[in-house]
Amino acid sequence: MMRNMKKLQGGIIGGGKNSFIGYAHMGAVALDGEATMVGGVFSGDPEKGCVRGAELGVDPSRVYRDYHAMIEGEKGRPEGERIDFVILATPNANHHELALAFLREGFHVFSDKPMATSLEQAREIRQEAKKQNRLYALTHGYTGYPMVKQARHLVESGALGDLLRVVVEYTQGWLSPLVEDPQNFTTWHLDPRISGPSCTMIDVGLHAINLVQTVTGLIPEKVCADLGSAIPGNTLDDNGSVLIRFGRNVPGLLHASQISSGEGNALRIRLYGSRGGLFWDQESPDILEQMNPDGTSTIYKKGSPRLCEEARKAARLPGGHPEGLLRAFANIYQGAFRAIRGEETHPGRDYPCSFQGAVTLAFLEAVLRSGASEEKWTQVERVE
Amino acid sequence: MMRNMKKLQGGIIGGGKNSFIGYAHMGAVALDGEATMVGGVFSGDPEKGCVRGAELGVDPSRVYRDYHAMIEGEKGRPEGERIDFVILATPNANHHELALAFLREGFHVFSDKPMATSLEQAREIRQEAKKQNRLYALTHGYTGYPMVKQARHLVESGALGDLLRVVVEYTQGWLSPLVEDPQNFTTWHLDPRISGPSCTMIDVGLHAINLVQTVTGLIPEKVCADLGSAIPGNTLDDNGSVLIRFGRNVPGLLHASQISSGEGNALRIRLYGSRGGLFWDQESPDILEQMNPDGTSTIYKKGSPRLCEEARKAARLPGGHPEGLLRAFANIYQGAFRAIRGEETHPGRDYPCSFQGAVTLAFLEAVLRSGASEEKWTQVERVE
Amino acid sequence: MMRNMKKLQGGIIGGGKNSFIGYAHMGAVALDGEATMVGGVFSGDPEKGCVRGAELGVDPSRVYRDYHAMIEGEKGRPEGERIDFVILATPNANHHELALAFLREGFHVFSDKPMATSLEQAREIRQEAKKQNRLYALTHGYTGYPMVKQARHLVESGALGDLLRVVVEYTQGWLSPLVEDPQNFTTWHLDPRISGPSCTMIDVGLHAINLVQTVTGLIPEKVCADLGSAIPGNTLDDNGSVLIRFGRNVPGLLHASQISSGEGNALRIRLYGSRGGLFWDQESPDILEQMNPDGTSTIYKKGSPRLCEEARKAARLPGGHPEGLLRAFANIYQGAFRAIRGEETHPGRDYPCSFQGAVTLAFLEAVLRSGASEEKWTQVERVE
Amino acid sequence: MMRNMKKLQGGIIGGGKNSFIGYAHMGAVALDGEATMVGGVFSGDPEKGCVRGAELGVDPSRVYRDYHAMIEGEKGRPEGERIDFVILATPNANHHELALAFLREGFHVFSDKPMATSLEQAREIRQEAKKQNRLYALTHGYTGYPMVKQARHLVESGALGDLLRVVVEYTQGWLSPLVEDPQNFTTWHLDPRISGPSCTMIDVGLHAINLVQTVTGLIPEKVCADLGSAIPGNTLDDNGSVLIRFGRNVPGLLHASQISSGEGNALRIRLYGSRGGLFWDQESPDILEQMNPDGTSTIYKKGSPRLCEEARKAARLPGGHPEGLLRAFANIYQGAFRAIRGEETHPGRDYPCSFQGAVTLAFLEAVLRSGASEEKWTQVERVE
Repeated sequence: MMRNMKKLQGGIIGGGKNSFIGYAHMGAVALDGEATMVGGVFSGDPEKGCVRGAELGVDPSRVYRDYHAMIEGEKGRPEGERIDFVILATPNANHHELALAFLREGFHVFSDKPMATSLEQAREIRQEAKKQNRLYALTHGYTGYPMVKQARHLVESGALGDLLRVVVEYTQGWLSPLVEDPQNFTTWHLDPRISGPSCTMIDVGLHAINLVQTVTGLIPEKVCADLGSAIPGNTLDDNGSVLIRFGRNVPGLLHASQISSGEGNALRIRLYGSRGGLFWDQESPDILEQMNPDGTSTIYKKGSPRLCEEARKAARLPGGHPEGLLRAFANIYQGAFRAIRGEETHPGRDYPCSFQGAVTLAFLEAVLRSGASEEKWTQVERVE
Repeated sequence: MMRNMKKLQGGIIGGGKNSFIGYAHMGAVALDGEATMVGGVFSGDPEKGCVRGAELGVDPSRVYRDYHAMIEGEKGRPEGERIDFVILATPNANHHELALAFLREGFHVFSDKPMATSLEQAREIRQEAKKQNRLYALTHGYTGYPMVKQARHLVESGALGDLLRVVVEYTQGWLSPLVEDPQNFTTWHLDPRISGPSCTMIDVGLHAINLVQTVTGLIPEKVCADLGSAIPGNTLDDNGSVLIRFGRNVPGLLHASQISSGEGNALRIRLYGSRGGLFWDQESPDILEQMNPDGTSTIYKKGSPRLCEEARKAARLPGGHPEGLLRAFANIYQGAFRAIRGEETHPGRDYPCSFQGAVTLAFLEAVLRSGASEEKWTQVERVE
Repeated sequence: MMRNMKKLQGGIIGGGKNSFIGYAHMGAVALDGEATMVGGVFSGDPEKGCVRGAELGVDPSRVYRDYHAMIEGEKGRPEGERIDFVILATPNANHHELALAFLREGFHVFSDKPMATSLEQAREIRQEAKKQNRLYALTHGYTGYPMVKQARHLVESGALGDLLRVVVEYTQGWLSPLVEDPQNFTTWHLDPRISGPSCTMIDVGLHAINLVQTVTGLIPEKVCADLGSAIPGNTLDDNGSVLIRFGRNVPGLLHASQISSGEGNALRIRLYGSRGGLFWDQESPDILEQMNPDGTSTIYKKGSPRLCEEARKAARLPGGHPEGLLRAFANIYQGAFRAIRGEETHPGRDYPCSFQGAVTLAFLEAVLRSGASEEKWTQVERVE
Repeated sequence: MMRNMKKLQGGIIGGGKNSFIGYAHMGAVALDGEATMVGGVFSGDPEKGCVRGAELGVDPSRVYRDYHAMIEGEKGRPEGERIDFVILATPNANHHELALAFLREGFHVFSDKPMATSLEQAREIRQEAKKQNRLYALTHGYTGYPMVKQARHLVESGALGDLLRVVVEYTQGWLSPLVEDPQNFTTWHLDPRISGPSCTMIDVGLHAINLVQTVTGLIPEKVCADLGSAIPGNTLDDNGSVLIRFGRNVPGLLHASQISSGEGNALRIRLYGSRGGLFWDQESPDILEQMNPDGTSTIYKKGSPRLCEEARKAARLPGGHPEGLLRAFANIYQGAFRAIRGEETHPGRDYPCSFQGAVTLAFLEAVLRSGASEEKWTQVERVE
């Protein structure tokens, strides 16, 4: 699993006590032991940050009050004793500023999605990472699942023939209590200053479009969106549907919702090609169904020796032992760590990269424009 | 089950040896024994028609060469010895002419869907049925499933709260072999002279929209459609997606396909309301999932005493004994037979009626106009 | 489907208004139109019988008060106008007497399961059927499902290699309300005079063992049973488990229950061989899972062209259109009708026959002996 | 999650490069950051051990050649700088010797299952842990799943009424390739010197019986086992079925297999009570089905606010985000760590303890005796 190597050192912005995404990132890093978390800004409240740092076993001198202090502090340490990378586990609106700041000072960056809240911001980050020759990895955790890799393998190997249709959805219900009672709870996802110009599309719709790109390589070219809000007073989208034309004129359909009462985290993709179909559901991540033209299905399962090499390597436990989303996250970290260490790796494949992040934001902006437009089709800006 | 009653007598147009839809209709009629099939036009080829009639045990004098002969023959029989109703089990383009002809002569009509190939035709049929005071039933078989009735009950009883989203699909793969090999087989569904102005939307998309109406009462008001064809040379739609605005401004999404390789007959509906969601899949028809706001689900099953009365009555075998589509069809026939016998019944509820048929064709025409339009929204004509 | 042929004529004992099994038998006969039900004993109460007969459209002269009258009445009719076969849809204890009576007078017999309530009775029936050269068919309806035929095909074709293990169950919950409230309802299944020496094993356990035999050809040779009753005052078994040694020393496990709260009709079989496994569940009858040694599964579905010929012929509707248990029953009737008409057919394959019925009763008797024994293994009597 | 506390220090025996169980243990410890792995015996080959230790970031001075050296080395360190606990991740036969050795020297012990290879050994360990007042935790990882805790809650709260039946299985296929080709691969599980007196029952059957005890509190009192081997030359069991009588005379059924071709890791439990049933499958661990007497089912899902407190606390990610077996393992470690730190905890509930381990071995020995016996029932020794 690991070679005889110096452990990488990481820092984090965010990841406070109740942050599930902080747990996901730090758990994923811990799982393989290739890196250690040695510092960070754990809370906007310095006192809470210290407590949390202590819990995490971080040296108090590396528990910082804000990211400026963190950059300064880490830069002030002898070479080799600084963090190698930072994890951005903050709400959407901070991602751009933080990514730029750390990249500029030569740190590798792992950012939680979305990359930024506009395509322009994404392009700046992308440029800065190139300029600084630093890794920029975007943690669309789902792309680390073995079955996502197997799905890509089947598409690439031509098992489906030519792609004819894409249907992808990301359906959640956690905002649903706000429909009848908008005071039920508060969340930054409904605040445009923190969430950006969108709630649901930026939060989960981008996962969905990134999944399509990861598995098929298809880039959206035109969209027609119907966005809506079911929560009284909400100025952003909390559900929406998008007709899509991908490259090669492949038609697609994406729908996303966070007011679908009773739903958990239903990221589901279906692909139909001239020689077969595929279905994958994030809530049963270890299974992939290939629908055959003769009306039978082939079910691939995590741990099967018949999987492609990438899918086999993305699992650690034998078949039938669920490994969950933490392993998927950890696979992304492992891929990106290889890049940091100068080993061979494939951005956009072993981990989501800035190109993919920019594509998702180009999609988002087109979806938002389309939602407000009376014309049927809205072009998606091309990302180079 | 049955009261002491004279059996109804029925005739059929279509239903030849290899007609699965003929089997479905006649099997459904046979199942409850409330009517007997006594005559019909079983084939365009008179000789084959005779053979088939003999197989079905029909008196040779009532095996007719065409529908004109059938109407004449039946009208020529003494009152009480004529057919009471006719089943139209022919391809789409005949439905209008046949329905009008039989209604005009005072016969009750069961028509396979679609009602006609245009809204105008549908309106004529609707008017004629009213004028003649004859039953017109449209065999959207799926609406006869117990779980469809239970779903309607849950919506009507407010179990879901206000409806916020509708997602419905009808996905098949049987045309898929034509994508790579357009000569693989021939089917009238791709011939506009027989199928009408659409292939997939008219064949299965209308089932989907009718299911939404049956369960929720929602009528589509505006649509935005992306129709496509993956079969080389096909001039009709073989797959498509439609954004919908239903009445009460409820957003919806319908997609239908017959080139989705490996799919069988996936008619699936999801409804999300302010207090819960519902999911039903025709391929597992005896189960209905109610998704609760607390993240649990309640699974209703055919045969459960907790079902509503309509759902309980729509089953004949105990829970766990699958009854399939024939029972669903038979439920529609039973409902409509009650109407013929003058018993209490609810058109559009116990059996799909001409209003529903016209609504589906108004939807179809709007979808086809939208498919060719550059504007986002296309109005659906209102049906009175 | 049908050739130019005279319709067979059938009678029934049982099948009253609320008899679900009567509905299943008569519905199955009606579905294909190869036979007509022309007479019967529909109720122990002659008046009710007349009403029911009228509902079913039976000539009043052929609505009989008891089976003696029925035999006499039918024998008194001119040859060619008598019933060809009788369906026994009565409780267990009558099957033996009725089957013998009708066979002796030259009628073909369809008996609902169990064949009888003892192995000795079963042997008498078997002998009489041979002596009279009359068809004896036992309606284990589940054996008529297409996927059961496909499962047999896979076993026979060696797709599983050598069989190593059999796990079969039949789990129901309908007696469960009696556990806390023995007066909740009454049922003849708990009355040894009507049900015979067993409740659950004779009612559903025999279905399970017959399914194993149908699919694999394996005959139980030794059993070790743990039978129990959870219903206060019940003197018969209402649940039980059986270790089995089949021929070729294949180990097996059968469990059956009618007090498993919440279960519907869970007849499930799993077979494991040296080269693969199989799983089938009667509640999802159109699907068959083949588990492959490489950890993938192949899902066969009704309607797939990849199915064996027998499985394809056992379906009438295209893939994805559920046909349910009535079609399975109808397939058994069609197979047996071919035998009656002198066409080629395979007893025990196209329809369950007296050999299988006797094997199930040999199994039952061994299970009951074992349940009362302190020895581990109890021999199953061999049926020739 | 964590309080301001000194991190615990752990050592491990086993957990080499390709050890999946080593990964599971160390991953689980790493996930919550409450302990650090600081030393161990990573391989029987000292050189490999050093490489592995380096990979894991362990100080070379604490990479030991064998457990004697480890105990000596750790005891020689200043108090407070020694390991607090050791993880035994070795094959079965070592567990007894290692557990005793570490307990005697005052270390807390986490042992992979089985506790030992005989009941007598288990009792020695149990006694020693008491005598030394040290924690002994047995890592039946599955017991850490949230849905297992919810199942226990439902049983304890009386939601099922009185328990009437238990059906539990643990079905795997990984030994299946040896059936046709015994040289296909080698494994210590078939070697009695390493595996102990059993292969399948000791490896996975004990998980199954422990799961029953964890959820229901039921202890097996009598068993009747049919053990078999399908692998040529195998002297141990590779599949088997057991009839069980638990306390309170509850009947049960356990079957386990490792030659069930195509199966992954199917640990499945069903409980039937007088007021409902439960079903849980380790391969879909985030779902728990409660079958209701009215024929509906209630589906509980990880992350639902309707779960009991223990189940809610056992999850870290929101509903719909699979957490897998590592989280289940980590929950056991967290529970046991609380005990080590002197906080309130419930052995046998928050983590499997020596009582449960001894019960499983009493069960195993009875099963093995029964397998060789001609008597129906074999008593299970009582564990105090």
